[in-house]
Order: sequence, then structure tokens, then C-alpha cells
Amino acid sequence: MLAKLTRSTISLIWILSLCNAAIAQETSKPNIVFVLADNLGWGELGVYGGGELRGAPTPRIDQMASEGFRLQNFNVETECVPTRTALMTGRQAIRTGTYRSPGAGQPNGLVPWEVTIAELLSARGYATALYGKWHLGDREGRYPTNQGFDEWYGISGTSDVSLYRTSIGYDEKVAPPDYVLEGHKGQKTQQVKEYDIEARRGIDTEITKRTIAFMRRNVLEKKPFYAYVPLTQVHFPTLPSHEFEGKTGNGDFADSVVETDYHVGQILDAIKELGIDKDTMVIFTSDNGPEFRRPWQGTAGYWRGTYYTVLEGSLRTPFIMRWPDHVPAGRVSNEIVHASDMFTTLAHLAGSDIPHDRAIDGVDESGLLLGKKDKSNRDGFLAFVGEDLYAVKWRNWKVHFIWLEDVTHGPIKLPERYAFNLLRDPKEETDVMSSNTWIERPIFTMIDKFNTTLKQYPPVPPGSPDTYTPTYKGSLEK
Amino acid sequence: MLAKLTRSTISLIWILSLCNAAIAQETSKPNIVFVLADNLGWGELGVYGGGELRGAPTPRIDQMASEGFRLQNFNVETECVPTRTALMTGRQAIRTGTYRSPGAGQPNGLVPWEVTIAELLSARGYATALYGKWHLGDREGRYPTNQGFDEWYGISGTSDVSLYRTSIGYDEKVAPPDYVLEGHKGQKTQQVKEYDIEARRGIDTEITKRTIAFMRRNVLEKKPFYAYVPLTQVHFPTLPSHEFEGKTGNGDFADSVVETDYHVGQILDAIKELGIDKDTMVIFTSDNGPEFRRPWQGTAGYWRGTYYTVLEGSLRTPFIMRWPDHVPAGRVSNEIVHASDMFTTLAHLAGSDIPHDRAIDGVDESGLLLGKKDKSNRDGFLAFVGEDLYAVKWRNWKVHFIWLEDVTHGPIKLPERYAFNLLRDPKEETDVMSSNTWIERPIFTMIDKFNTTLKQYPPVPPGSPDTYTPTYKGSLEK
Repeated sequence: MLAKLTRSTISLIWILSLCNAAIAQETSKPNIVFVLADNLGWGELGVYGGGELRGAPTPRIDQMASEGFRLQNFNVETECVPTRTALMTGRQAIRTGTYRSPGAGQPNGLVPWEVTIAELLSARGYATALYGKWHLGDREGRYPTNQGFDEWYGISGTSDVSLYRTSIGYDEKVAPPDYVLEGHKGQKTQQVKEYDIEARRGIDTEITKRTIAFMRRNVLEKKPFYAYVPLTQVHFPTLPSHEFEGKTGNGDFADSVVETDYHVGQILDAIKELGIDKDTMVIFTSDNGPEFRRPWQGTAGYWRGTYYTVLEGSLRTPFIMRWPDHVPAGRVSNEIVHASDMFTTLAHLAGSDIPHDRAIDGVDESGLLLGKKDKSNRDGFLAFVGEDLYAVKWRNWKVHFIWLEDVTHGPIKLPERYAFNLLRDPKEETDVMSSNTWIERPIFTMIDKFNTTLKQYPPVPPGSPDTYTPTYKGSLEK
Repeated sequence: MLAKLTRSTISLIWILSLCNAAIAQETSKPNIVFVLADNLGWGELGVYGGGELRGAPTPRIDQMASEGFRLQNFNVETECVPTRTALMTGRQAIRTGTYRSPGAGQPNGLVPWEVTIAELLSARGYATALYGKWHLGDREGRYPTNQGFDEWYGISGTSDVSLYRTSIGYDEKVAPPDYVLEGHKGQKTQQVKEYDIEARRGIDTEITKRTIAFMRRNVLEKKPFYAYVPLTQVHFPTLPSHEFEGKTGNGDFADSVVETDYHVGQILDAIKELGIDKDTMVIFTSDNGPEFRRPWQGTAGYWRGTYYTVLEGSLRTPFIMRWPDHVPAGRVSNEIVHASDMFTTLAHLAGSDIPHDRAIDGVDESGLLLGKKDKSNRDGFLAFVGEDLYAVKWRNWKVHFIWLEDVTHGPIKLPERYAFNLLRDPKEETDVMSSNTWIERPIFTMIDKFNTTLKQYPPVPPGSPDTYTPTYKGSLEK
């Protein structure tokens, strides 16, 4: 109990310090709508070379790009949970104990000690909501409403489970189904209905409707809002709603992409109708590289690789930000930005301070996003698969330590590192380390720096209890 | 001698019949500038997803696309000479005996009996010139000036030979070097200088200058013109001019792409300066898939494969057409068009008739290109490597008979055909024939039709003499 109380006390101190910081800052509080697609690879959207070539036009998202800023080098972690961790906490998942998407029934979720962007924005006076897929905790104490969200509706885990009842010999006694859940801050999260195939088909429509209702409510109440909208498409099973079934004539996957574009369009339309176009930043991105499960294969388009690898097709996902009068229209950049930067950048844009008692990987990229700067504030990042460092990306170079081309062939611990120039060899086919060994200098410097922070701020062990608080020097727990 | 005279007589009859046909047609004779890059893959240009991602921005060609029409499904033959054959004659190279790029010293070139687009346009009153790489004949009788061009300057073969003198033990007695050549109709083609590394670096600058001078001359003379501009970049050795060396900081290949963009920009600027913007159609395309020789590797971007394969990365090349007031700006299409269609389409746009005494594969795509139609006039085509049918493409499907993933691994004659849906599986990774066997119907119908034409019009045997004339029923030689 002592630890738990301590944790609450820390939170209180923390929140109070944030409020003070906030008062000192400018008072602008733009609305934030953060749409996150699930397993949508680089190659799906028209503006990233897909669209019509995939039999799935995406005119609304393409238009959003032409009205906003598009990143060609936005990087994520190598799977679902780690990227969501980075987006929420600004920390790479290797630090938070959530570096793998948990198997069914395995311990999972962020410990309450982690500070999420929802907590920061909530402390800053934002209404906060999550509609969609959380995947950072599947029980009371670790739900979105335990991590800064005023309300949530969606799934705590993954869409795989919607296939349970279609599987031969499925026995719910040994593997219970998942549920669509709904929760409000201060109340227990409730089961709404089983997350079966029918629920899977319909959930993004529900997510979109609830997002729009939430925006409308807060516009009426004149409250700035943060809507985190992690859609469930195009994760397998990639089945569209019945309204979109057969829409393209090119199969379920194409129908689902088109439906996703439609949902984004609905959100954008609502923002215009509500008259908050210039007060609302909308971000569209994806959690990781393309889906590879048959028959629901996605594509990395220009790049090679799927999630679970560290090829560019895994690391780079679409990223579009629209915010009229703040983000210049039609801009495109190849500067490196990382998912963890979203935490720091959104905090900055909303006038919040970020925690200083832990390692934060995210850097503030507001200058780049708002068109005030041409350069990113980072040169690269470390790419992990699980707890293993697979590769380091630095400028237009990548050095691989563990090589994984596709998930059906095991990783190879390389006796000699591979180096690829990503401009000249985007599919990472020709190792040119021998003629470019100077690259090792900046790469090892980055690794050393990262390791120093791991020593200074030891990671949260996976499976840590809710009562977890760190004991290192510099933590609030002194 | 008899045969040769006969050939001349035929040509005369032919040309006269063309003139009559021409008179009956509308009198519009737009200028035609046809720029053909060498081994430039799908993934290089900014507008095709490359550009900045390749460290080689291509703003001029990208702008040309935004001012014109861009094809996403323009298809070529699987290597240099066959595509150039198709562009010049409207016939797939399997019919003309030029289905392989010849090795050094091997017999090569189109027989004089073939009718080229240059001949058609010349008969229609066009000034015709080729500046650049011909590759359809390396001796008197088979040079561009023997095939309808009033003049030419460039190389008869390939850029490989520019490396001869850098090769260990090179002996010019056993393998003479190639020369930059210059020719005028009715005169013998002359050697200008050896095509060595220095000439290779500079030749595209010469090509561009001569193209602009040719356009200027004909504008002054008020003569419609056809400039065929087969640039030599980015074929290996991909070495830029000294002016562009180090321009990008990303190596020779990137410098050469940027230089190519600059040259295209110079041609476009000249067209504007000459006041013939609306009277001049400019086409930019490439002869085949990406360069794969190290260290000069190109990229197919969205697709997989290089030239010599029949993967989409080999078949699809960039295609942009700009013609203000005639071709609507900013249009993009995924309709299938084939290199051979250029012959028929350009003939139509210039008011020429095409030969009727032989099999012509090209169809008229002027409706599609001018924005009067949404659909192509073809559903697919046969893809050969050498004289072997490797695959057939039909709508969004491709069926492979011989499988070749990359040129370092031999082709596999498939015991069972592979079928890929190109919308859903752009990288051709998952054979779905077993669940889509209906596809065989249209595929085999296409093959049967093609075979019928091969029987009716037997192909020109490779290595045929200049005196070649066909003897089949329906040929002019009755």
C-alpha cells in the first residue's frame, strides 16, 4: 500500500508541476486529432504511390496531404505495442517493458508510473479520449482511463482475437474471447459486446462516430480536446464493414483501405463543419510496416520488409499532418522523425512540459512540422526487435547488427555488420560497409549514448506490477 | 540486285500511298519530341516516388508530369533493343529479328524493309532527327538515316563500350572501340570521335544542345519536326558530365539522374522560348527496367525486378506526356499502354496511316492520351525475353510461364503457371493461380491470337540481310 500511495503522491506532485509549467507558457491549446492506422504499410495510400495501383483509391487522405505536411521518413518501432508505447510515452519500448506485443493472456501494459501524452494534455485542461485499439494494458489499472484518458471505447488488445470463433476446435474455456470495451475516468471499464468477426467489421465505423461526437461535444463546451483515434484497419483479419464489402471489386483488403479513407474523410468533414479547421491539428499515421498475413497482405511499396523486421518497409510509415494556417500546405520532407517524437512535439504544441525524471527518447519536432525549420532535431535512432538491437539508422545510412529479411526466415546474428546507403539502395540489397567504415563512428556513438541512458535510468522490467516505481538517482522517488 | 530494286520499288509505292492517305487527313502536324531515357527504372523520378528519396531531385520532369499526363502502367519490352524496335516499328521484337540486344560484333539492326515512325513522319512532311542512342543497326544501310531520319548524331550501340579502355588487358585489335557518329540522309554516316569515358560523360549534353538547335532551325523554317531523343543516361557506366560531378553529394548515379532532369528542363525551356509550347508534344519515358550493374544500381521503386525479367519492375517504366491545350494537365492513369502503341499513336496524331502488309502490335492510344477516353484500347500484351514467352499480362493479372526473379539466377520453366493479381500483390510474391484459373481463358486467347499473326506474317529471321523482303500472302511482294 505504501508504494501505491507513494505513486499517487508522485502523480499529484507531477500534475501540479505541470500546471505551473503550463501557466507559464503561451495559452494556445490547439485541438489534436491523432489517427493511427493499424499495419498500414508505406505503399497503400495514393500519395505514397499506392491508391489506384492497389485498386484502392484514397482521395481523402491524399487531399489531406496536399493540404498539409507529409513525411517520407517517419519511423516507428517494429511492431504494434512498442510503437504505441513510443507515441504515448515518448520512450522507446525497450525502456518500458512493453517491447513485444504480448501473446494471449500474457502480462502486458504500461505500468501506471509511465506518463502518457494523455496525462500531460489532461493536466493542461484538455478533454481526452481514445476510440479504437489501445494494446497497452488489458485490465483495470492499465486501461486508457487509468493513463490520462477521460473516456475510451474500443479494444484493449488486437484484432486477431476476432477470428477465435472461426477457428477449428476453438474452446472458450481455455482461451476466452475479447470484448469491445467502454470506460470513463474514475469508473470501471465495461464490456460492451464480444469482439467477434461482426464486431471487427463494424468497429471503425463506431470509432469514427464516437470521435465526431466527442469533438462536437467539446466544441459546444469550448474545451480543447485530444482525440486519439487508433483505427483497427488494416490489421488482419482485414474485413470491411458490410457497407464497404465489394466496394472496389478488388477484395477485402482494398475495400478496407477505401473504408479507412472514408472514415478519415468523415473526421475531416466534421472538423470543417464544426468550424474548428484552423484550431485543430490532424495527424494520420500507422503503427508499423505492412500486414503480411495471407490473404491480407499489404505492401511497403518503395521499400522492402514488413513489421518485425528493421528494413525500411518496416520502419517507415505514412505520416501526414494537416493544420491550416499553421502547417504549410503541400510540403514534403525526407527528414528523420520517430514515433517517440510525437509525445514531445504534441506536448510542446499544447504548452506542456515533459517529465525530467526519466529517459525520454522523443525530441521536439514542432519546428519541422510547422515549417519553421527544414531540418529534423534528430539524426537517427536505434531499431529494436523485442529487446535486441537489430540496426541503427543515421542520416541516410543504416547499419544492421542482426539481419532479418522476412519473418518466415530466422534472424541472423551477423559476424560482420551490414551497411546500406538508403538513398542509393532503398531495398537494402548491397552491403557497402567495407568501403564506408567511417559510418561506424556515429553509429557507435549513438549506441553508447543510448546505453548510458539505460544505465542511468534502468528500464521497467516486463511484467512489473502496478506498484512499480523506479529507485534510480534522479527519480522522483528519492 | 533484283531483290534490292524490288525493295526500293516497294518503298516508293508505300511512301506514295502514305502521301495520299495523309492528304485525306486533317492537316494538323504537331511537333513531336520523344525523350527516351536509358535503363531508368520506375523508382527514380520524384513523381514516381523517388527523387528526394533517391538523393536525386527531379523537379523539371515532376513539373512536366503535373502539366501533363502520367501513365502508371506504360509497358516496355524486357531490354533495350526490343523496346526501341517496338517504339520505331510498332512491332514486338519477336517479329523483327531484333529480340535481343546483340553482343559486340554480332549481326544486328532492323532490316530496311521495316517501316519506322520516322519514315511515316518524314513522308508526312516532318523534319526528322535522332540525337542519342540508336541501337537498331551499327553499319551503313541500318543507321537512322537509312530508316527515315534526316539526320542523326550519337551512338549506334550501347554505352558499355565506353569502358573498354579501362578494362584490364583490353586489345583494340580484337575488339575495336565504338565511335560517336554523325549522319545526314543520302550521305554516309561519319565517325566523330571515340566513344570513351569522356565522350560518355558528355554525350547527353551534346544530344540536348543538338535537339534544341534542330527545333530552333525547324521553327525558323516553319517545318513540323520529330525529334527522337534517346538519352544515354542512366545506363552503366552511369557517369555524369564534369559539370554535374558531385552535384548531389550522393554519388555518380544520383548526379546523372539530376543531370537528366536538367537536360529535359532545357528542352522544355527551349520549347517555351521558341513559342511552340502548344504545338509540341513532349514525351518522356524509358526503354526498360532499372539498371542493376554495380555500383550503378537503379530501382524499380514500387515494383520488383530489373530488365531481362518480366516482373512489373521490368515492364513498367515512367511515361509522361505534355502537350498544353491538348493533353489535360495533372491526369494520371493506370491503364495498360505498350511501347509499340507509340508508333501507331504518333502516326495517328500526325495524320499518317500505318502499314497494312504486316503485323502491327501497337494500337492507337491517342484517345487515352488526349483525355478523350478513360480506357486503353488494349487489355494486355505478351512479354518475351529473347524469343521465349515468359508471361502474359491481362488487365490486373499476370500469368508467368517462365519464372525469373533476378538475372543472377537462371530462369525456371514452370511446371505449373503462376498467376499474380498485380493490384493486390504488386511484387508478385504469392501465386494465386489455383483459385483463379478462369484467368487462363483470356490469357490463352491472347496467345492464340498472337500465334495466328505469327503464322500469317512470319517473323523476320535474326541476321537477315538488307535485301530481306517477306514472301507471305498479303505482303506487297506478291
